[in-house]
Amino acid sequence: MVKESHDQRIVVSTVDYRRGGIRIVDQTLLPAEEVVLDLRSAAEVAEALTMLRVRGAPAIGVVAAYGVLISLENLLREKVEDPPPYFFDRLEGVSGFEAGGLDPEEFRARLLDTAGRLASTRPTAVNLFWALDRMKSAAEAFDPADTVGFCGRVAREAFEIHESELEIEFAIGRNGSRYIKDGMAVLTHCNAGGLATAGYGTALGVIYRALEEGKNVEVYADETRPLLQGARLTAWELRRRGVEVTVLCEGAAASLISSRGVDAVLVGADRIAGNGDTANKVGTLGLAVLCERYGVPFFVAAPWSTFDVSIGSGEDIPIENRPEEEVTCFAGRRTAPAGVSAYNPAFDVTPAELITAIITERGVIEEPDGDKIAEIARASGGAQAGR
Amino acid sequence: MVKESHDQRIVVSTVDYRRGGIRIVDQTLLPAEEVVLDLRSAAEVAEALTMLRVRGAPAIGVVAAYGVLISLENLLREKVEDPPPYFFDRLEGVSGFEAGGLDPEEFRARLLDTAGRLASTRPTAVNLFWALDRMKSAAEAFDPADTVGFCGRVAREAFEIHESELEIEFAIGRNGSRYIKDGMAVLTHCNAGGLATAGYGTALGVIYRALEEGKNVEVYADETRPLLQGARLTAWELRRRGVEVTVLCEGAAASLISSRGVDAVLVGADRIAGNGDTANKVGTLGLAVLCERYGVPFFVAAPWSTFDVSIGSGEDIPIENRPEEEVTCFAGRRTAPAGVSAYNPAFDVTPAELITAIITERGVIEEPDGDKIAEIARASGGAQAGR
Repeated sequence: MVKESHDQRIVVSTVDYRRGGIRIVDQTLLPAEEVVLDLRSAAEVAEALTMLRVRGAPAIGVVAAYGVLISLENLLREKVEDPPPYFFDRLEGVSGFEAGGLDPEEFRARLLDTAGRLASTRPTAVNLFWALDRMKSAAEAFDPADTVGFCGRVAREAFEIHESELEIEFAIGRNGSRYIKDGMAVLTHCNAGGLATAGYGTALGVIYRALEEGKNVEVYADETRPLLQGARLTAWELRRRGVEVTVLCEGAAASLISSRGVDAVLVGADRIAGNGDTANKVGTLGLAVLCERYGVPFFVAAPWSTFDVSIGSGEDIPIENRPEEEVTCFAGRRTAPAGVSAYNPAFDVTPAELITAIITERGVIEEPDGDKIAEIARASGGAQAGR
Repeated sequence: MVKESHDQRIVVSTVDYRRGGIRIVDQTLLPAEEVVLDLRSAAEVAEALTMLRVRGAPAIGVVAAYGVLISLENLLREKVEDPPPYFFDRLEGVSGFEAGGLDPEEFRARLLDTAGRLASTRPTAVNLFWALDRMKSAAEAFDPADTVGFCGRVAREAFEIHESELEIEFAIGRNGSRYIKDGMAVLTHCNAGGLATAGYGTALGVIYRALEEGKNVEVYADETRPLLQGARLTAWELRRRGVEVTVLCEGAAASLISSRGVDAVLVGADRIAGNGDTANKVGTLGLAVLCERYGVPFFVAAPWSTFDVSIGSGEDIPIENRPEEEVTCFAGRRTAPAGVSAYNPAFDVTPAELITAIITERGVIEEPDGDKIAEIARASGGAQAGR
């Protein structure tokens, strides 16, 4: 179960399970509108995932796990006479029902059905399948006679998924904050913050930790075209935490970095190859090249689960090409003439040689290379063991 | 007077003086709407300049010169009995009136009054003052008894301003096209094309010339945040000329260049210091740094008038900071939350060491440095002698 003390550090309620509902902030409306949604059924969770109201791999995994839970809670509500307002709560745990009259097999079937339904919402999100698999594994171990035990176990699994994600993010923050000195100016790209994760963030988690340690940090955020996650989401969560932030167009980053306007660049990652080459939101490589030329340290902050040691180098990381309309249109208006093509890769790959250090929950890999990454993988019993 | 043969090469009618009107394309509406305006008074010209319906230093100068002319044409219309539809035409010259009954002093006063009025529209545009000064100088040399001669001389001056700008652009195209080989892919930034100039362009003029020579050129255009001149204007004029163009966000340029997707980067310039350091639209420096790392040639194309040899190096070029709302809002919608600052310099400075060559109408300066630039300045009798 998530420790109550952690809640004080989660200022961005990307996702929370409280009293019969999954509370999220609708990210599609940020920053113009700050709408909190309480998802109260698997159907509502599926819609929120499909419509990208919640995005970011760790956040998606947590929401999916909670989506299975809300489905069981609704089944309980049907089955229990005079049901209480809620049965499961992230802080209060499991309560309010007894096994009498409940058919355990019905609960198991509901869990599997909901998991299958949620798995189809975002076909490429690895964390989604990972979280749903954990929920299904928890179900497999249940005692058929004990519905209360079954529901309690499944609920604990969901809360533990959330908690373990948070613990990883806190650990990344702890491990990375030593690189952020008092008074530093830091530039970040896209959104690697609480909104993309369980509530604290990876790259932004390092900044939050530095701030918690009392350091002054000046934060710059690339607006991150075409979808403006930096301007819309990173700026929003920093402001919500009371952190001053200055946004800039990607084209202005060279001006900022060359004039020594920032002391470090700090980004997240989508996939890291076995040699340390890092795929992240398009625009990251340009920052790394600027950092090399102007002698500014370039940090990647990511959970160990982001490493894919089955991939030898960045050349083999598949890069998703996004729709051209993301570039040629904005808010329904064409910004480029009809008939114009767009080059719109979602990610680029930064070679390991440009990365000062990769900050993970298992420690920091300075001057990353294949040997250092393989050593951590061996010590941890496999690349994906962190999850 | 502009040579008729040139018209076949001016596919973008940034500005034209034809039969009693100054024809422009309203650049504020591109690419959604392609609205041609016929400006028929100095007041309409002043409004078009103030509202940025015409932009780009050379284009502004030509429009201002024509603005003086349209004002004289309107005065003639008042003074001449049974006036013809027009008195001045870029292709047909001057016709339709005699000196009888006309007060030359009235025409001179009108010219000075109009020049003063237009000079206040864009206080920082050097080409505006230069063009208006040329018109005033032409007026000073007039014979007070000869209104026909006076008007003819002033009209010729305006047409010559347009023509000389075009000749410069054609010469830049000629000098630069040798660097563009058949089959090359070229990336450009912002708009250094016909829309910003007298109708042909500087960086885009080089591409147009290469195309005229029968070479195949694949063109990429940075969208150029925050005002999207690349997506809106460069893409529009290339498409209008039948040239395929692919736009990309600035953040995707590193992906494109690192994957050897382009063979050259080609940009314009706003001011070039005596040592070759070049100020251009923000985002240019980032491209130059990428070109250095990935071995891609980086070209600047600009008229000699862009050089400011009174400035020793790029450090001394003043950089305009633009309003934060250009970054934090789009089409009237906020893209970043309220209270968020923006870093929004209009230009950045690319050091000469990153520039493969500067292409001017006076020749190409490869590996530009202070000595080479000083030599051209001496041979030409001063830095600004080109105008």
